[in-house]
Amino acid sequence: MSDAGDLDLDVADLDVADLDVVGIGNALVDILSHEDDGFVDRHGLTRGSMALIDSERAAELYTAMGPGTEISGGSAGNTMAGIASFGGRAAYIGRVFDDQLGGVFGHDLRATGVVFRSRQAISGPPTGRSLIVITSNGERTMNTYLGAAALLGPDDLDPELIAAAQVTYLEGYLWDRPEAKEAYRVATEIAHEHGKVTALTLSDSFCVQRHRLEWRELIDTSVDIVFANEDEITMLYETTTFREALEEVRTHCQIACLTRGPTGSVIVTSEDEYVIEAHPVARVVDTTGAGDMYAAGFLFGYTHGFDLPAAGRMASLAAAEVLSHIGARPESPFRELLDQLEV
Amino acid sequence: MSDAGDLDLDVADLDVADLDVVGIGNALVDILSHEDDGFVDRHGLTRGSMALIDSERAAELYTAMGPGTEISGGSAGNTMAGIASFGGRAAYIGRVFDDQLGGVFGHDLRATGVVFRSRQAISGPPTGRSLIVITSNGERTMNTYLGAAALLGPDDLDPELIAAAQVTYLEGYLWDRPEAKEAYRVATEIAHEHGKVTALTLSDSFCVQRHRLEWRELIDTSVDIVFANEDEITMLYETTTFREALEEVRTHCQIACLTRGPTGSVIVTSEDEYVIEAHPVARVVDTTGAGDMYAAGFLFGYTHGFDLPAAGRMASLAAAEVLSHIGARPESPFRELLDQLEV
Repeated sequence: MSDAGDLDLDVADLDVADLDVVGIGNALVDILSHEDDGFVDRHGLTRGSMALIDSERAAELYTAMGPGTEISGGSAGNTMAGIASFGGRAAYIGRVFDDQLGGVFGHDLRATGVVFRSRQAISGPPTGRSLIVITSNGERTMNTYLGAAALLGPDDLDPELIAAAQVTYLEGYLWDRPEAKEAYRVATEIAHEHGKVTALTLSDSFCVQRHRLEWRELIDTSVDIVFANEDEITMLYETTTFREALEEVRTHCQIACLTRGPTGSVIVTSEDEYVIEAHPVARVVDTTGAGDMYAAGFLFGYTHGFDLPAAGRMASLAAAEVLSHIGARPESPFRELLDQLEV
Repeated sequence: MSDAGDLDLDVADLDVADLDVVGIGNALVDILSHEDDGFVDRHGLTRGSMALIDSERAAELYTAMGPGTEISGGSAGNTMAGIASFGGRAAYIGRVFDDQLGGVFGHDLRATGVVFRSRQAISGPPTGRSLIVITSNGERTMNTYLGAAALLGPDDLDPELIAAAQVTYLEGYLWDRPEAKEAYRVATEIAHEHGKVTALTLSDSFCVQRHRLEWRELIDTSVDIVFANEDEITMLYETTTFREALEEVRTHCQIACLTRGPTGSVIVTSEDEYVIEAHPVARVVDTTGAGDMYAAGFLFGYTHGFDLPAAGRMASLAAAEVLSHIGARPESPFRELLDQLEV
């Protein structure tokens, strides 16, 4: 490589035969800055939310933001990094542009041990980014310009990875444009043709609200494992109580992992129900990535032959680690934390 | 702006009439990763040092490094951010390429309040970066690919800024290629033609070793204020003791600010000598940027009419703040710390 401006790397032929999980999602680099609480109001942001923004709004907000820190993100990308941190074999499919942020995204994912060999786009919008404003108490307000990420379509899929992985994991955030929806359908078909399992995270209650009926159908027809928090699952099935939503979802998929913040989580199948306690956290520093790491822990356990309660405890362990520090990806290798568990 | 891939911003006409300081240096984005101590040995690095690397070595090291965090850096850029943090009016001249890291560099500097209006290069190498490996105890090993930064020449100067600023501050790191040396000479001439003051930081003892005779001559002919640490100043004048170096340098410039780590610093003119104590630091977390912030504090005080001992105390205060956290730029606004001082 003679041009260091290209932060991307040559990818050697990787053995992908024994993949545990392949994730598909919005490939994003996070740009974080600390701001006072007035910033959120002055710029018409909704504190603690995730908003999609266009390129002009992204430029305007970035201009207003203070000095930044750039760090690779994206929900499913975080989850794949978490699986690799357990020692699992994960791959990722997402769309970046052939620019420096695209190179950073690929480097960081590969550096965690995740297989990432998606081609960089050479036309269209630049690599997506999430402008994250951190205000008091570490609360984050995310403003995501999707850029190249949103244009993922069936051609961006990597059938070899999907056929090889025990689980194909889909991120709800990506469900937006027709091409992405088609990519999900194709991905779940490939997985099922090869006798593999599919999983979907509902990502965000706003996403659920927008896509409720489509997602109910997607789950009925194509998804084996559902990840959702309490808000998302009650919104999906329009129920008043968590219990009602739980009883509903278990009739539509094989496994549902339902998180309830500090209360822990519940994992249900059509017949069984396991209540999983939250793993203790000395001090919650930053909630970003907790759901992503919960999914990582569960999927690692699930693909390594552990029973559902054990996989749930791994999920809680991973969530607790990422709650204890700033940033959405693991700081301590998860595999070194595993002896805290009796599984 | 319609393309959010361009992270640069339009620059409004800024009033530069009352500038305190303009800094000239290597415009770099830092890429930081945490590695185990073996990484340094395996890759033939010298622990704690700064090495210049070419693009191939940069690509090789980046491939080997773990997931990174990107944050704007560059010694003189850090110092200008520090002056702005005191409420001073600073500007910066440095060379970036028209790429995303160049945009990030410009955004971050402007977001601190520094005037930065250098044109982005549209041919040649990409924006420079420093690959920083953090090992145990927070020690940093820096590997700098200069890229566009190293090609700064007289044409990149902004005479209006230099003519307006009370002090033109030159970074020793940039002294390497003939074009950069010529730029320094031109910059000091412009400053002196306008009755202004020039300053040079020696930056690094390896730089001093390489450029000893040229720098002695530069100081004799063109530099009013010298910043150096104990190693650098003894190496410059090839003396055995700090005292001998101090007595030598005071005959070659108007003011020398000589830092001695935890021992504090000494500020000398031909007639006066002021011993400045280090400002107390509860816990030294990261030494990167301490020298840069020392210069920021001194230059803020000097350009705001304070006497030399008071400017020295501001220097120590700024150094202490940046020693107390990870990262080379201020976290707490320096102007809010000023009431800790009796000046």
